[in-house]
Amino acid sequence: MKQPKVGIITGSKSDLPILEKTEKALQEFGIAYEITVASAHRTPHQVAKYAADAEKKFDLIIAAAGMAAALPGVIAGHTTLPVIGIPIHSQGLGGHDALFSIVQMPPGVPVATVAIDGAKNAAILAAQILALKYPGIKAKLKKLKKDLRKG
Amino acid sequence: MKQPKVGIITGSKSDLPILEKTEKALQEFGIAYEITVASAHRTPHQVAKYAADAEKKFDLIIAAAGMAAALPGVIAGHTTLPVIGIPIHSQGLGGHDALFSIVQMPPGVPVATVAIDGAKNAAILAAQILALKYPGIKAKLKKLKKDLRKG
Amino acid sequence: MKQPKVGIITGSKSDLPILEKTEKALQEFGIAYEITVASAHRTPHQVAKYAADAEKKFDLIIAAAGMAAALPGVIAGHTTLPVIGIPIHSQGLGGHDALFSIVQMPPGVPVATVAIDGAKNAAILAAQILALKYPGIKAKLKKLKKDLRKG
Amino acid sequence: MKQPKVGIITGSKSDLPILEKTEKALQEFGIAYEITVASAHRTPHQVAKYAADAEKKFDLIIAAAGMAAALPGVIAGHTTLPVIGIPIHSQGLGGHDALFSIVQMPPGVPVATVAIDGAKNAAILAAQILALKYPGIKAKLKKLKKDLRKG
Amino acid sequence: MKQPKVGIITGSKSDLPILEKTEKALQEFGIAYEITVASAHRTPHQVAKYAADAEKKFDLIIAAAGMAAALPGVIAGHTTLPVIGIPIHSQGLGGHDALFSIVQMPPGVPVATVAIDGAKNAAILAAQILALKYPGIKAKLKKLKKDLRKG
Amino acid sequence: MKQPKVGIITGSKSDLPILEKTEKALQEFGIAYEITVASAHRTPHQVAKYAADAEKKFDLIIAAAGMAAALPGVIAGHTTLPVIGIPIHSQGLGGHDALFSIVQMPPGVPVATVAIDGAKNAAILAAQILALKYPGIKAKLKKLKKDLRKG
Amino acid sequence: MKQPKVGIITGSKSDLPILEKTEKALQEFGIAYEITVASAHRTPHQVAKYAADAEKKFDLIIAAAGMAAALPGVIAGHTTLPVIGIPIHSQGLGGHDALFSIVQMPPGVPVATVAIDGAKNAAILAAQILALKYPGIKAKLKKLKKDLRKG
Amino acid sequence: MKQPKVGIITGSKSDLPILEKTEKALQEFGIAYEITVASAHRTPHQVAKYAADAEKKFDLIIAAAGMAAALPGVIAGHTTLPVIGIPIHSQGLGGHDALFSIVQMPPGVPVATVAIDGAKNAAILAAQILALKYPGIKAKLKKLKKDLRKG
Repeated sequence: MKQPKVGIITGSKSDLPILEKTEKALQEFGIAYEITVASAHRTPHQVAKYAADAEKKFDLIIAAAGMAAALPGVIAGHTTLPVIGIPIHSQGLGGHDALFSIVQMPPGVPVATVAIDGAKNAAILAAQILALKYPGIKAKLKKLKKDLRKG
Repeated sequence: MKQPKVGIITGSKSDLPILEKTEKALQEFGIAYEITVASAHRTPHQVAKYAADAEKKFDLIIAAAGMAAALPGVIAGHTTLPVIGIPIHSQGLGGHDALFSIVQMPPGVPVATVAIDGAKNAAILAAQILALKYPGIKAKLKKLKKDLRKG
Repeated sequence: MKQPKVGIITGSKSDLPILEKTEKALQEFGIAYEITVASAHRTPHQVAKYAADAEKKFDLIIAAAGMAAALPGVIAGHTTLPVIGIPIHSQGLGGHDALFSIVQMPPGVPVATVAIDGAKNAAILAAQILALKYPGIKAKLKKLKKDLRKG
Repeated sequence: MKQPKVGIITGSKSDLPILEKTEKALQEFGIAYEITVASAHRTPHQVAKYAADAEKKFDLIIAAAGMAAALPGVIAGHTTLPVIGIPIHSQGLGGHDALFSIVQMPPGVPVATVAIDGAKNAAILAAQILALKYPGIKAKLKKLKKDLRKG
Repeated sequence: MKQPKVGIITGSKSDLPILEKTEKALQEFGIAYEITVASAHRTPHQVAKYAADAEKKFDLIIAAAGMAAALPGVIAGHTTLPVIGIPIHSQGLGGHDALFSIVQMPPGVPVATVAIDGAKNAAILAAQILALKYPGIKAKLKKLKKDLRKG
Repeated sequence: MKQPKVGIITGSKSDLPILEKTEKALQEFGIAYEITVASAHRTPHQVAKYAADAEKKFDLIIAAAGMAAALPGVIAGHTTLPVIGIPIHSQGLGGHDALFSIVQMPPGVPVATVAIDGAKNAAILAAQILALKYPGIKAKLKKLKKDLRKG
Repeated sequence: MKQPKVGIITGSKSDLPILEKTEKALQEFGIAYEITVASAHRTPHQVAKYAADAEKKFDLIIAAAGMAAALPGVIAGHTTLPVIGIPIHSQGLGGHDALFSIVQMPPGVPVATVAIDGAKNAAILAAQILALKYPGIKAKLKKLKKDLRKG
Repeated sequence: MKQPKVGIITGSKSDLPILEKTEKALQEFGIAYEITVASAHRTPHQVAKYAADAEKKFDLIIAAAGMAAALPGVIAGHTTLPVIGIPIHSQGLGGHDALFSIVQMPPGVPVATVAIDGAKNAAILAAQILALKYPGIKAKLKKLKKDLRKG
């Protein structure tokens, strides 16, 4: 891996439109990514295999899920890569369920949680992390900071 | 399995004192059980293997967990046995986190959730379910109902 | 009862469209069911009679209700059959009220609670439970698991 | 019934110490009462019978319960007497569960809900209601108001 | 007052459409009422005067309010009549604010709280209370119970 | 009023220990104050009179209350002085009730709300407001800022 | 500053429509204001400079923000002027996030918090505060009170 | 920076005991760190300077705060380094306030949020991130995973 690469994984196809903001931001950073739809509940073996193979393919993982959002934590249980979790909003509990299911991880297995539906920030956090290893990203983060300051 | 057998699994040793009520109630129903400590986050392979083997050993599974309580849902993802989930209370969010993480399962993979710290009820629900297959349990449930009515 | 049979009961006609997912899933499992509209608050005698007769007619009961959702717990108070509770979402409290009213049962009288509006999962949980007694359902559950894994 | 009489009913013996404030306040108003421990979940027939007989014995009913607090609503389902509900605080959800289970009644079957653990206020509300029929209570309510104003 | 009479008061004209259910139900019970728009925050003197005069005009008061819903409690502070409080749903906090502001009254000054937007139940509760003094209402309550049982 | 003067009012004697932080901070600012215990629910006339007279005696009012904390809003309804509200924490709902009851004021009648149990900050906010009129307080606020920066 | 002047600052352009109510109300009070869009997270230097210069330009500051609404508290950290905070409602958590982020300030640095989306009340609170220094505003506040009382 | 170095910053000295778990875990990973107590509200200039200098001294920052926990977000506003946020539990709102204040960051400025009081996980997440740049840490993470699996 001479080039940064991010694995994006989501529990449900219905989350893909929200993740377009993640994709767009990663593209702007010039960070390659691969999107997978797999569920900790419906396709646990696929998730376990995905996580086991992840260290060979990816620098870090972005995992999105709604409701009893186990996916980010389960991925984190299988890998030592950093895992960024995006809680997806749903009707009724308004995302409280996904937020608590992702952020309240037990000692030993963290998930770096962003805001409910925080798809763009997941990509920016990924870039901040990857910039430690790939210094070329640093300049783009500096430019983003500058752009944010212009409003 | 001519005799009913329940697998009890919990994410943390610290939950074992709460589960003593589950054990005691199962003993009163004459239902055999086996307790395992394993975590969807810390020991995911053990959990996957446990769940894969479960159908040979158990009639149903009782899974307890606190915080981002993925264990019951992950077990349910690996088996077609009924899975009863017990959300364990913790400081701060008072069990809201465990309750939402266990009950808000996506379509396809249910967890039969009982009250926060509802360790005794998990055993009674198990007995109600097992009575369908093992009619001998029915009489004990009728007796329990009668005892409840005495107060 | 040589064939599995489920009693579905709901507190309000307005919940029937949500329960169509329960019906459709039970039909796919080949499980017979009967739907009843009755309320723990408006028609308590009908509910008590329904619950008293349930053991002769049904293997288990699925009870749905919104707001101060007493129905599942009251049914559970009258029977030793397993009772699956579906909290129905309503405006304002977003289903917090129905969820807490159904899941937070006192020791002695469990309700197997599924997600807010979790109508399909109630049927799958019913099938998992019934498969203990009616082994023919097991194959359909295995097929569902396989289908879920295809995504 | 020439004298006012209140039925107090609670789901659990453990609530009795909280209800001592209800008793003390009713005594100060000179209102007779009878306390019953019965549960909508554990002793549903006793509750149904209690509620069916209530109109002959009582002017109104005060019902206290915690967790999935069905008792006040179920009593209200069986009677046309006014029912005052007291949500009892419990660990974890801090009374949110009991409050929502008691106050969020469906159209047709109200429960007059007071604060979490509002045992004294249940008695005062009872007195305010009974004063419509028993004018002698009015003077005591006026005196209470005056006493409150003294601080 | 040989005829029952209810004072309905609401903090805002915008609540009047919700209160149409209260009016309709009172009309069906043959209970006279008078509607007033006044606010504990915007027109406190009017509210104080309203509450002071209430005992001469009304048997009980129904008070509706949203957000920091002080009106029912403030009315209750000024009178010994029973006060029924209706929390009105608003955007954002979904009625949690109005519910807590109305139900969590301090010892000495109860408000009989019904569900969020529970306008019809406020009228039925009023009828249950008034039936103690005006026995003619009892038959209508019995008929309502019967109608509810028909579904 | 050549000297700044603050009226502190609280709904219950039990809140006085919390308000000692308000007193201590006002003393450090050299701001005179007067403490009154009066309740919007128990002593509404006293509160109305207090608020009506307030403009002659005080520059602003600090009002503390717990549960259905109507006091700050009711005071604000009676005066055009700035009213600072302190929600007081109580068991069960943990101050959610007092916070929502104080901060969610309707358009026209604001309350300047500080944190749950934020007794010291109420005094500092008072000093910031009074410094507009009494420039001598400004120097003390600058000193406080400097002290805060020392940690 | 012989004339009152208010600084309005908001974290996002998208909040400007909500702040039109603040502007309109300030205009009715004849209070000059200046609106700035700046973010504690995106443009922290601009915010720090704004807050540092504020004492020369403004009598007080109104700061609005949504989600992790740090802006009002950060402004308050930089100035001894009174800071009024408006939590802005957003999807999912419904404003709980902004409200808690603004009101729960630590000892030493208060923010005078108004209701979620309470844009008009922020202006009225500003007028109440400014009336201490600019007595001409007092008459307009009295007129507003009178107008409110007309309903 | 040939050696990994983490900046730990907390809003209050009272959080230091909680952060001992962060320190201990970083020591076990052989990661140098420096602890600073500074507040976004009380010492904003110090925080701004800290964040501005951070890129020269640190690879990433761990920021802990309670209540209206602005510190992690404000640090993130000043730097392009990854910022890990630890919400600190406090009485009353039980950490809901700190969690929402830290995780609900607006687009452009992420904070990698861990559980309430998740001090150990903040260190492990830091190690996972630093392992991208300092491969020597990877082996220690693998060992930690192995140790977790032993239970």
